Order: sequence, then structure tokens, then C-alpha cells
Amino acid sequence: MRELVKRLHPICRSMTGDGVRRTLEIIAETIPLELHEVPTGERVLDWTVPEEWNITDAYVKDASGRRVIDFARSPLHVVGYSVPVSATMTLEELRPRLHTLPEQPDLVPYRTGYFKHDWGFCLSENALRELPEGEYEVRIDSALTQGHLTYGEHVVPGESADEVLISCHTCHPALANETLAGIAVATELARRLAGRRLRHTYRFLFAPAAVGAITWLARNRDRVDRVRHGLVLACAGDRGKLTYKRSRRGDTLIDRAAAHVLSTRESEIRDFVPFGYDERHFCSPGFNLPVGRLTRTPDGEFAEYHTSADDPSFVTEEAMAETLAAAEEIVEILEKETTYLNLEPYGEPRLGPRGLYGAPGIDQMAILWVLNLSDGEHGLLDIAVRSGIPFTTVASAARSLLEAGLLKEEGHRREILLQRVERES
Amino acid sequence: MRELVKRLHPICRSMTGDGVRRTLEIIAETIPLELHEVPTGERVLDWTVPEEWNITDAYVKDASGRRVIDFARSPLHVVGYSVPVSATMTLEELRPRLHTLPEQPDLVPYRTGYFKHDWGFCLSENALRELPEGEYEVRIDSALTQGHLTYGEHVVPGESADEVLISCHTCHPALANETLAGIAVATELARRLAGRRLRHTYRFLFAPAAVGAITWLARNRDRVDRVRHGLVLACAGDRGKLTYKRSRRGDTLIDRAAAHVLSTRESEIRDFVPFGYDERHFCSPGFNLPVGRLTRTPDGEFAEYHTSADDPSFVTEEAMAETLAAAEEIVEILEKETTYLNLEPYGEPRLGPRGLYGAPGIDQMAILWVLNLSDGEHGLLDIAVRSGIPFTTVASAARSLLEAGLLKEEGHRREILLQRVERES
Amino acid sequence: MRELVKRLHPICRSMTGDGVRRTLEIIAETIPLELHEVPTGERVLDWTVPEEWNITDAYVKDASGRRVIDFARSPLHVVGYSVPVSATMTLEELRPRLHTLPEQPDLVPYRTGYFKHDWGFCLSENALRELPEGEYEVRIDSALTQGHLTYGEHVVPGESADEVLISCHTCHPALANETLAGIAVATELARRLAGRRLRHTYRFLFAPAAVGAITWLARNRDRVDRVRHGLVLACAGDRGKLTYKRSRRGDTLIDRAAAHVLSTRESEIRDFVPFGYDERHFCSPGFNLPVGRLTRTPDGEFAEYHTSADDPSFVTEEAMAETLAAAEEIVEILEKETTYLNLEPYGEPRLGPRGLYGAPGIDQMAILWVLNLSDGEHGLLDIAVRSGIPFTTVASAARSLLEAGLLKEEGHRREILLQRVERES
Repeated sequence: MRELVKRLHPICRSMTGDGVRRTLEIIAETIPLELHEVPTGERVLDWTVPEEWNITDAYVKDASGRRVIDFARSPLHVVGYSVPVSATMTLEELRPRLHTLPEQPDLVPYRTGYFKHDWGFCLSENALRELPEGEYEVRIDSALTQGHLTYGEHVVPGESADEVLISCHTCHPALANETLAGIAVATELARRLAGRRLRHTYRFLFAPAAVGAITWLARNRDRVDRVRHGLVLACAGDRGKLTYKRSRRGDTLIDRAAAHVLSTRESEIRDFVPFGYDERHFCSPGFNLPVGRLTRTPDGEFAEYHTSADDPSFVTEEAMAETLAAAEEIVEILEKETTYLNLEPYGEPRLGPRGLYGAPGIDQMAILWVLNLSDGEHGLLDIAVRSGIPFTTVASAARSLLEAGLLKEEGHRREILLQRVERES
Repeated sequence: MRELVKRLHPICRSMTGDGVRRTLEIIAETIPLELHEVPTGERVLDWTVPEEWNITDAYVKDASGRRVIDFARSPLHVVGYSVPVSATMTLEELRPRLHTLPEQPDLVPYRTGYFKHDWGFCLSENALRELPEGEYEVRIDSALTQGHLTYGEHVVPGESADEVLISCHTCHPALANETLAGIAVATELARRLAGRRLRHTYRFLFAPAAVGAITWLARNRDRVDRVRHGLVLACAGDRGKLTYKRSRRGDTLIDRAAAHVLSTRESEIRDFVPFGYDERHFCSPGFNLPVGRLTRTPDGEFAEYHTSADDPSFVTEEAMAETLAAAEEIVEILEKETTYLNLEPYGEPRLGPRGLYGAPGIDQMAILWVLNLSDGEHGLLDIAVRSGIPFTTVASAARSLLEAGLLKEEGHRREILLQRVERES
Repeated sequence: MRELVKRLHPICRSMTGDGVRRTLEIIAETIPLELHEVPTGERVLDWTVPEEWNITDAYVKDASGRRVIDFARSPLHVVGYSVPVSATMTLEELRPRLHTLPEQPDLVPYRTGYFKHDWGFCLSENALRELPEGEYEVRIDSALTQGHLTYGEHVVPGESADEVLISCHTCHPALANETLAGIAVATELARRLAGRRLRHTYRFLFAPAAVGAITWLARNRDRVDRVRHGLVLACAGDRGKLTYKRSRRGDTLIDRAAAHVLSTRESEIRDFVPFGYDERHFCSPGFNLPVGRLTRTPDGEFAEYHTSADDPSFVTEEAMAETLAAAEEIVEILEKETTYLNLEPYGEPRLGPRGLYGAPGIDQMAILWVLNLSDGEHGLLDIAVRSGIPFTTVASAARSLLEAGLLKEEGHRREILLQRVERES
């Protein structure tokens, strides 16, 4: 995954443009992507798809002709969606266009201004201080044109048309942890699901943040009810602990599954707040989808956030592997969660003659918990949470009991009941 | 407010009598009062209005004719409702009639005995110790007569006949914090509400504790359902932190509003208990009104409670001002609490073109919270509590969104639902 | 109670056999028992009553003829349900049959193997180390025969056919705290209930653990609904603090009563888990009886558990007396719990004229709490829990109010409501 991050890192991405297309092309080397091109001007919910932005070069040259700020070194140096510029101006005139981080003087900030029709450069505070007064040649070779907003989808089909949505944003240039680690984890998760027999259909969405997600929602408004569970991935590769942010509903299966999976790791569970990544749109009150968010250190809470320090050296393979493992365990729960009915519910049944007592690979406590709580009211995840036994162990005990004829499957009773409650309320 | 406390302090109040009338007269200099005179013997719920008690003088004179205990110095020196006495007796005979606080030897206790037809004097333990043996002249010029119980009401009319009841007791002599600070805060609150356009009607009740409140309840039994929210004020001026005592129901709007208002201050929230001030009667199971209580240090929890040390020096203008401010903020919530419906609930709407993005005076987080939770299920107070943003900021964001056409008002959905649940249960 | 423990201690008990019968005989000297003999082979739920096991002697003799392991010294020395053996073998051959506790080298473990048709001896690790190599004479004079499983019942009749089940296990040899203290406390509790006028019928069950409880459940399947409350007693005499384990339902009256009673003592409340003593069968999902468990230190959590150190010196009369006192207080709540209706619910009624104000033996706070919460929705236990006042004080206040005509009894409203909810869910 770290190789993918490194490869994607230099590309200049924004809400639209060829950088996004190039990013999707590279992802498509690993997993097939269906690409969507949505034209400028299309109404998407309350928004409009903006002009497409592309950029080939940008710089500030000093009197000696030296590029003191150079887009070629990093796409962060240009404010996103900058309009074309070709001018000579004094440092005094230029200064309001130059963005730095005075408190992190070595770092270049990330800035964008999608709807401002403005322009600017980003550089480190130290670099700014070294600029002598005088005249500078300023040039941005960009274009804002009637074009498209591009996003990609990858679908892993399952037995049911019910979907699990895995979403990550593709719009930020050169932010390894904030943007690319999520893309890498999502891509690897999709690769691993390929060819598996799955209960749910898994839809991976690679789209620019905000307007991208809004565009996808607008174009899928009629079928969005199929999204039964969802996860936004971002900030997926730093060394911090895992953080799960609950969906707006707060107690859906994905919320309970994530809380269970994270309970065995150093981690934090947070309540929904209506800002952050695209969960804010998926969880807008009109959609109110059961979509949570998995990050490591959340946006804005690490010093490297939205700066040049969020480079590939900031993410580790181990961290992305742990994020991936957590996502996979959540998927396992979504796949296996069900409710069983104990067929010998009067007293404990004899386990010895059925090979379930003291046999290798049998977790005795899990067996007793599954028997006791399989009354049609408790799903496997309920049992795992209440017993404190990992879901996989509980699911394995249930399988043994099923094979021994002590259980029958009831289906997703809890979900069905919850849905009924929701419908009626 | 402290001036009012000082002015009311010397008056001898009790459950009935001219001291109460004089107190109401002084309040009526600031806000008009409707006076009610309820005759002795009238049945009020399970009680009967007692005889009216008045007192002109009382003393204990030593052999030299010196008044060693003197009602003229403080009404606390006579036990409330003492019957007339004119006698000469030895200190030995008198001693069972003399009440002191041995552990606070400088202070005079407050004592009363409404239904005992008894008499007594209160003095400091130190003063008692200095009394030599010998004969004393004892005199109480009091009268218990067929008279009236007096209480006053002040109504600030609102658009709705639904009432907010603000109640404080008027029956204790010379207790600045315990009694008079509550009167002062209530009076000032009424004065400030005058002339405002209000949603609710505000009824201020100045009545003697217990039998006074019971009398008011008895006389208003048919219309008591109009009381939709209520607050008892007492112990409103000491330097301790604010304390809110929940109504018996515990989760009514006044309870949630008070908890929210107090959450930003050093304060304490307590559950209902069936003793204290008149909330015990308003919250008796037959009425079960949504009436909470706002105090600073609760009754019985400060050393000066029910002693001569609860004098005007014990209350501060700052403390009363904070109590008043909290009460006013609670009123603001009662006035403004409502439920809105987000009219662009699918994804976040664009804020910039509507002047709601980065504009001065716009709290961006409050805007997002109101949009996200305005689904018809959450009132503004719910949003304030969940977001941790002050109610006024949330209400202001809602107003901006309403003006921008992004919200419409749904009304007090939560209250309506809760009432329906209550009716059905 | 400690005398009973001492007397029962030497008897060799197991799931079946004369040791159980002798134990029940001794209990029956204090309280009459109805004995049940269930034949080998009878199907009981998912189980079958096993062969009866009896043993008269067992030993291992060394070359000199000295008994180095001797059943006569303690029944713990033989693995329960050992088949008959008569053999000579080397220490090497014998060693796999010898069970010790290497980490507690002075103690003899308790072992059994009901369904294995195997045999073995238990001894201390130190004793094992002293055995020289060489030949040993091994003999177990036991018999596994078509016989019976024996259990006893004692019933204290009450006004209602509704039953309170008090259950303890009778199957372990020579474990004073684990087994016998529970028997002693149950016996004493039954003795104290004799002749009392009781609301509920109390059924005491003395049965072997697991198959015994299962047999009782199988034989009483049609009438098990009469069990409205139940308590399993075990580990009832050690010096540790009291521990209550909730029923599977978790919030039944017995659970709330036990929590209230234990709240005034050093104690611990635990959630239900589907292992432990016979609560696992009473609380299997098919029965789901409201049966909790009262122990001191729970099974497996004291070092003496299932070893020879769990002898009569390990239990104290004081500890058993406290367990008994807690059980009796729980019984008092089961007996007296009811819901009253305040007949003067509008404002507080006058207490003085009814002799309820300041009278000796009247707890004023309890009076106010009962009046305030007797709205038909709160039982006495609810009032005790909410007020923090002991149940007995609350019940006594209710009695005074009932006699004063201020309350009428509504019956077990909460229970009735809960049952209705259960039936409908």
C-alpha cells in the first residue's frame, strides 16, 4: 500500500481535472473501475458541477530568473483552482497571494478555493522570509473550462443487492495520509474481496470530497436505499490510534461492528458530528445513511494535516495494514452477522456426545454464550459484545453448534426489527 | 436587587399578617401585583387556612427593666405564631421557651410553630449564657385572629395562555438569602419581561411557603394545567454556585433548559426530592407540574441558613445578578425552543451563495448542526445539548437559515410528542 | 450453621448415591424434605439420568502395605464416579491416574468424571513426591449400577401458588464453603420461614448440580412458570464480600431486591453469564426464569476452591449469618413489595393531625417519598432505590400511611405491567 501512496503522491489532484483521472487510472491497475464523467453545469442536489481545472505549470521567478516557488516541485505550491496568471509584480503586491504557516515555518500549507476564481501560491514561512524585495515574474498556466467532474466506482458483487459502500476522497494533491492512505486501504480491501462469495455487494467509491460525494448521491438518489452499511476511509496511515466516528444514527450495525472490532485495539469511538469528510453528506438528514468513518488520527488533529509534511514518510505500511485489518474485520461481521435459534433451549444441552466439549478448536465459553443468547433476540454481534469474546470466535462457535444441529438460523432479526421500528416511527 | 433585600429585611413576615402585606406593597412599587386575601378557615386541598398572626411588640425584661430579648431588634427573636403572653417567671421557668444554637453561639435561630398555639423566644447562645438567674418579665403582644392569608400575583401576558410559573416564598422574617433574594430576582425578572412580546404568559407568584402554595393550587386547580413550565426561586443570593433541582418528571423542557444553561457555569444539577420549597407541592403526584427549582446553595447547606447571619451582608448583587441571568437564559429557551425542518436535507446545501459561509456573525458549526439535526425530531435545545454550542448561538444560526429559506418551522414537535406519550401512558 | 457444615463435611457426595441420601437425611432433621428418586436412564431434557455411583473404600497401598492414599481419610482422594479397580501396578503406570495441584503442593484437588467410566486418585503434590518408585496395590470398591438420582424438596406454603425457588447443590464431597455453606444457609432460611404467614410459596431445592437441576426442571416443566423469583445459594460461607449475580433477564424483582439489599453492604453485583451454578439451567433461554445467585466469593475466585483447603475452618458463622441476613432481607422485599396509591395526591397532605409528623418511629423522609411516588407507577422498592432509604423503613412508612388512610394498595402494578410487556413482546 505504501508503494501506491508513493506513486500517487506527486500527482496534482483537485476536485476536477486530469490529476483525478490519472489517479483513477493507477487505481484501475489493481481493481477495475467504472469511470463517471459528469459535465460542468450539471445540477447535483443543491450544487452545480464546477468548471474543470487543469494546470501544467506555475512559478514565481525572481529577478535572476530563478524559480523561487515552483509547481514542478510540489502541486501544493499552487492554491487549488487558481485562475491563469501572467504578471510581473513587486513582492509587496504579491505578498497577499502567498500563504504560509508562520507557526510551522518549514512547511508548505495546502490551500484551495474552488468557487473563488482567485489565485495564489503556498510556500514555507522560511522560504518567504528569504525572498528579497523586488520584482517577480508570476505565472500560472492553468485552465478553467467546461469539462467534467470525474469519479470511479468498483463493485464486488454479492448474493444480495444490498450494498456496503466504501468511500474515499481523491481530490487532494500530495497529502499522503489525509488522502492517499485511504485510497490505498480501499483498493487493497477491494482486491482482497475479489472472487469471494459474499453476502453483500460492495461498492467502492473514489470521488472528490464534497461535490464528488454530492454528485454520486444525486446520480444514485433512487438507489441509495440499497446502501445498508458504509464506511468512509481517510487519514488511514499515520502512527496514531484508530478512530471510528459513528454514523448519524449512531447504533446501526456498522457502528456496533466497528466499536466491537476497535474494542480490542488502542482506539477511540466518537459520536457523529456534521463536519469532517463525506459522511457529512451521506449522513445528511435526507439520506441519513448508516455510514461511519474510519480514520487513524482524525483530520485537523495531527500537526502534519494539510501541509507538505503529510508526505509518504508520514504513513507506515504497519498503520495502513492495521486500518485494513480493522476494515476487514468489520466486513467479516457485516458478512456473518445473523441470529440463530437454540433448538435445545431448555437447560443446557449435552455437549460431550456432540463433540463440543473439550474438543480442540472449540471455545467453551463461546459455545455457552451462543446457546444462552440464541433466543431469536440476540445476533452474533450482540453475543460478542455482551460476552467480550471476539466476533470470529463467537461466529465459529455458532457454526459448530449449527453443524451439531443445536441451532437454526433465524436471519437478521435485530436488523429486521430495527427497520420495522424505523419505518413505524 | 440588594437594595430591595435590605429594605424588606427588617419586616416581620410570617405565613399570614401585615408583614406579608407590607412586603407585597413594596414589591408592587416595581411591578403591579394582584393581591389575594383568603379567609381563615377556608379549606385548601387537605389543609385549612389558619388564623392570621400579627405582632406589635415582644420582649423579655430583666429585673432592672432592661429588654434582654427584644423583638424590636429583630423579628427573629420571637417564635413565629407565638400566642400572646404577659407573665413574670424565673429564668428556670423561661428556659424551655428560649431557643438558641449552641454550636453557633453568636447567632439567633429562626423558629416558627404555625399550628402549635405555643410561644417562645430565640436568642444567641452567648446571650442566654449571660442571663443571670432571677425573675423576668415576659411579654408578647401578638394576636391570632380570624383574618386572611395574603398572596400576590403578577402576570406578564404572552401570545399563548400557556403559563410559565415563577414562584417564591414571602413568609420568612429577616432571612436575606433564603427568602428575600428570591423575591428580588423574581421581581427584577418580571420587570425585565414587561412590555416584551412573549410566546408564553408569565405568572409570578409571591406567596407564603407551603400553605400559601397549597392555597394557590387549591384556588387554581382547574387551570393549573396551563402551567407548562415553572421555576421556584429561593436562596438566590449567596456566593455559592448555582444549583438546579429537577422537576419530579425530570426531563421536561424546563429541566433540559436549566441543565443546558447551567452547563456553562460552575453549577450542580440535582434530582427531584419531595422536600425543600414549594416544588414539593407543585410536584405532588396529583399535580406533577413541570416545575424545577433554582437556588444557589440549597436550603440547609449553608451555615447561615435559618439564622440571624442570613442578613443582607450575606447576599451579593453579583450572585443575584448571576441567578437572574440564568433565569433569563432559561426564559429565552422557553421562548425560542422550537423544531425546524431542513428544506434541503439531501447532502449539505451550498452556504456561500446564501451568505452563510464565512460571513460575520455566522457560527459555521451551529449552521451545520442545525441543518443536520433539523429533521423534525430535534428541537433547538436538543441541537444545543448535542453540539455543545450555546442555545442562543444555535437559535441565531436557525434564524439565519430560516431567513435564507433553508428551514421551515415545525413547532414544538418534541413537546407535542412527549405530551402525547404522557397522555397515552 | 457451622455445626451442620462440620457434620456434612466428611460424607462422600456425588451426583448420585448414598452420600446424597445421607446428606438429605441430616437436612431433614431440621426441615422436612420430600425426597425424589429418579431412575437411571430416565430422559431429563437433553440428558439421561446416569448410573448410580456408590463407593465403600478405596486406597493405594505401598509395598509395605501402608495406605499411601486412603479414601477413608477424605472422599476427595478418589475421582468421582471412578469405576471399580483392583490391580497392582508400578508408580509409573499409576502416575497418569494421580491428580495433584503442583502450584498448591499441600492441597488435594477435587476431581470428578461423571460420564467417562474412568478412575483416578487425588492427592497433594507433596505426597506424590514422597512416593518411591515400585509396585502399588490399587483398589477402588465402587459400584456403578442401575439406581437413582436423589433430590429433596422442602416447601413453605404461602397465600399464593407463586413460588420463590431457593436452590443449592448437594453433589460435592468435602467442600465446606463451595457446597455445604449454601446448604446450611438454605436450611436455616427454611427453618425461619416455617409457620410464618407468607405471601409466596417458598420451595427449597437440594439437588445435585447440573443433572440434578435439569432433572427437577424436566419433572416440573409444566409448573415452572410458578417460579416468580429464585435464588441459587453457593459459596455462602467464606470471609469474602457478598456477590449477587443477576438473572439472565437482569432487571426482575429479585435482581432489584438483591441489588438494594447488597447496596448497604460491602458487595458486588455482576451481570449474568451462562456458566457457574444451576442458574445456568434455570436461566437457559427456554426457561429464562427470574433466578439470580447469591454467593460470597464466586466459584473459582478463591484459592481454596475445589481443594481440600475448602474445609470447615474456611467458613465462618459470621459470614454465613450475613449471607442468611441478606437472603432474609431479599425475602422481606419479595413479601412486601407492592404499589400504593396516594389518596391525597394534590399537594402534601397534613401529617400532624394524622400523627405522622415528628412522631416516634416515623421516618419523615420516608413518609414524604412514599406519598410523592405512590402514583401507581412506583412500587416500594422503586421508592427505596430512588430515595436511598432502606426498604424496611419505606415499607414501614407505607404501613403508617395506609393506617392513616392516606394510601390504598394497588397491588404489584409494576410486576403486572412488566409481565404484560413480556407477554406482548
